[in-house]
Amino acid sequence: MLKDHVKGNVPDKDVLKTMIREEEAKLSGSLMKIKEAKLPVMVICEGWGGAGKGSTLGKVINAIDPRFFKLKTYEGTPSDDEKRYPFLYRYILTIPEGGKFTFYDGYWMHEITDAVREGTLSPEEYAKRIESINRTERSLHDNGYLIVKFFFNISRKEQKKRLEELMEDKDTEWRVSKSDLKENSRYDKCLEIYDRYLTDTNRSIAPWYIIDAKESKTAEWQMLGFLNQSIDTALKNKALAVPILQNTFPLVQMPKLSDIPLEGKTLTDEEYKETLDKLKKELRDLHYRLYRKKIPVVIAYEGWDAAGKGGNIKRITGALDPRGYEVHPIASPEPHEKSRHFLWRFWNRIPRTGHIAIFDRTWYGRVMVERLEGFCSENDWQRAYNEINEFEKELSDWGAIIIKFWVQIDKDTQLARFTDRQNTPEKKWKITDEDWRNREKWDLYEDAVNEMIEKTSTEYAKWYILESVDKKYARIKALEIVIDQLKEALDGKRKNK
Amino acid sequence: MLKDHVKGNVPDKDVLKTMIREEEAKLSGSLMKIKEAKLPVMVICEGWGGAGKGSTLGKVINAIDPRFFKLKTYEGTPSDDEKRYPFLYRYILTIPEGGKFTFYDGYWMHEITDAVREGTLSPEEYAKRIESINRTERSLHDNGYLIVKFFFNISRKEQKKRLEELMEDKDTEWRVSKSDLKENSRYDKCLEIYDRYLTDTNRSIAPWYIIDAKESKTAEWQMLGFLNQSIDTALKNKALAVPILQNTFPLVQMPKLSDIPLEGKTLTDEEYKETLDKLKKELRDLHYRLYRKKIPVVIAYEGWDAAGKGGNIKRITGALDPRGYEVHPIASPEPHEKSRHFLWRFWNRIPRTGHIAIFDRTWYGRVMVERLEGFCSENDWQRAYNEINEFEKELSDWGAIIIKFWVQIDKDTQLARFTDRQNTPEKKWKITDEDWRNREKWDLYEDAVNEMIEKTSTEYAKWYILESVDKKYARIKALEIVIDQLKEALDGKRKNK
Repeated sequence: MLKDHVKGNVPDKDVLKTMIREEEAKLSGSLMKIKEAKLPVMVICEGWGGAGKGSTLGKVINAIDPRFFKLKTYEGTPSDDEKRYPFLYRYILTIPEGGKFTFYDGYWMHEITDAVREGTLSPEEYAKRIESINRTERSLHDNGYLIVKFFFNISRKEQKKRLEELMEDKDTEWRVSKSDLKENSRYDKCLEIYDRYLTDTNRSIAPWYIIDAKESKTAEWQMLGFLNQSIDTALKNKALAVPILQNTFPLVQMPKLSDIPLEGKTLTDEEYKETLDKLKKELRDLHYRLYRKKIPVVIAYEGWDAAGKGGNIKRITGALDPRGYEVHPIASPEPHEKSRHFLWRFWNRIPRTGHIAIFDRTWYGRVMVERLEGFCSENDWQRAYNEINEFEKELSDWGAIIIKFWVQIDKDTQLARFTDRQNTPEKKWKITDEDWRNREKWDLYEDAVNEMIEKTSTEYAKWYILESVDKKYARIKALEIVIDQLKEALDGKRKNK
Repeated sequence: MLKDHVKGNVPDKDVLKTMIREEEAKLSGSLMKIKEAKLPVMVICEGWGGAGKGSTLGKVINAIDPRFFKLKTYEGTPSDDEKRYPFLYRYILTIPEGGKFTFYDGYWMHEITDAVREGTLSPEEYAKRIESINRTERSLHDNGYLIVKFFFNISRKEQKKRLEELMEDKDTEWRVSKSDLKENSRYDKCLEIYDRYLTDTNRSIAPWYIIDAKESKTAEWQMLGFLNQSIDTALKNKALAVPILQNTFPLVQMPKLSDIPLEGKTLTDEEYKETLDKLKKELRDLHYRLYRKKIPVVIAYEGWDAAGKGGNIKRITGALDPRGYEVHPIASPEPHEKSRHFLWRFWNRIPRTGHIAIFDRTWYGRVMVERLEGFCSENDWQRAYNEINEFEKELSDWGAIIIKFWVQIDKDTQLARFTDRQNTPEKKWKITDEDWRNREKWDLYEDAVNEMIEKTSTEYAKWYILESVDKKYARIKALEIVIDQLKEALDGKRKNK
């Protein structure tokens, strides 16, 4: 891509100035349309060190009201804390809200290409990174994001000249990094690496634009022009549905909810108490080992209202060191969450290595409540099965253990518990009108749950059913499953890696 | 405090168990009252390494529904990134929302006491930290926060035994830090340091409770008991106004808005263009020096609607490297911001060392729009002058340059600009009904602004008036002030440090 790039015609200086003014006016004129369409725009600038992406960016954003954008700079190397999260984590955190821009002065490219240059990333890891990026960009695009990518290109000679100029002055010297110098001294090798990276990540939904950055006004004009064109196109496409993808992940066969027997799944108080104490002790010890081995764990709870999720979670957390876990109760999204990709608020809550994150309700809200209440379009929730499988695949590839529980009761049991809550003053806050309304849609929910379990029980992130007419039974079963999964991972016998 | 602590009576085991159950029930029974009263609760646990604050915390939070709390662990040493912010920064970020708890397994104590033990904190710095903490706790309390502080106490012998036990097992070994071992080997010195710290930060609005942590059930019972008592008291006090404090900061004499002449403050287009280019170049160079010297800068803009804040800011940012500054447009707070201390969302946005943060509207909303629209109580905004002076003092003591601009126009100029916006399609989005409503309250606002400028023009964070009937004049004046202030700081001639 980079090696065979053909430079376009460049207008002469006076014309250029006028054309830049025009493009600036066009950009600032499209802000209200972007706001109304709630279009989130990611402008990713990569390039050779010293190519001037920073100063070009500075000029471009000065044409935009600060209410409409953020600018984010990424260093090639994650901090020690960031290293305790998956590769994608620190990048996804900064995606814009609908109606706003994030400009990136460097994004995920250099973390990868620097590592390739230094020989610290194997071809397999490289391929995985590329797949992660392409999937993420596609998922963002499908969820309405516009992604515009620029590569600022200069020759080896030009780069050398610029770096030397910067280093001559002690006030600009800091702008030249070690990585910039390495880049220049190994320009041809880097050219190979960048060319390959750009080719590997050049997709129709998020193509690369190569900017000839030798002359700064020309660079600015090119960037503004491409940006305006992309915005035009995105605004036109905004209302279109996107294709639903085939499932490519290995699935485990799962029963329908109605085929799961609930009767007889009970424990006596004595059985319960005795087993509970034993299992809690076991889990406590496993938690310490897990922490030491830095394995992250995600436990997801879904289930009928009043099925006993809260009490079940409590039996797990009762065994854990509070410094090593967090429970995330998931309610309807806050405005700043709702205006981003639906998985953003969950990316925000994934555990660090060695930690356990327990979700009381999860990202599966997309294919249950959001589907049934019309909070997202049909195209949105139909795409979500695959988007969720991809999300969980990222976590699993990173090394996370993922355990998903569906807490199952029948309709009569729910009624009995609702009535009890309604009639008990200390429990009354737990029951709302919404619970009663959801209950009326039981059959629709059951269909949605069956479809969800069928389509997202992947080998690497299975669903487990907890029969919870007797809550004691469900609690012991949950503890046993968690313990089994942790043991498998700790003893290195995991099949699903 | 610690040295002369007298242990209370401890009930015997069976009674203890029942009493813990009762306290747990009481705690979980008060959750709805806390939610309704929107009471934010900070539970700070400090103590000797191995004293068991983690496991006691684990039991206490297990009595609380996860929707009502977060748990946060602090290490004694900030990360490299955290070091680029003021001492208080990483602690204030995690304060709870109204109606919720944050439990702290260690808070700001150990960053200070570890440094004292290691001899890396001078007595002057120590005194400053203590003042910062006491002010912050008072300000949180005054804004409705309940702060409950526990110190888990064990003897040298007991600590030694526990640390040795933990180190015997490789799965628990990691729980013993180097700092824990140092603590034990220099127990008496640490006792001195802790005793002094507890005494220095023991205030009636946030007293310390010493927990005898030798026996874990007793510790749990004490903690639950103190916590429940504190909650009771806080719920009773919730509606009370708190005293307004005397101003203790040196103030600069400022004119009333009506005494500031606006006529004649104009520039010709030629004067403007020529000066602008010169000043921008100067500011660009200063920005690089600033970055290298790691000086943080806060520029705050307030002013009448349509006074020209946006365009003024643009002339500043036009000169800056986009990687080194951020503009924060401040609108009404989001729900998760509104439910915290009013300064929280600004703490969240302070610049790293070497960076510039520009605020388009600021924390002064508290004493203008929130005051006039009744978004906070009279007691709230009257207290705010001092709270704001303290906030800016923290930033100034940290080394920040603080520049505050009031962009001034007269009523006729505003009318002309409103009308122009109304009649120009591209500008129409900039004018809202609210702007017209605010205009009707011009005189009330003017009184509020005069009071604000009078009470918050401190030596270390002055207000500057930008006469903006001619926007060109105001822009040049702003650039000149910013340049002057940066120069003063860079050349080490600042008077207000």
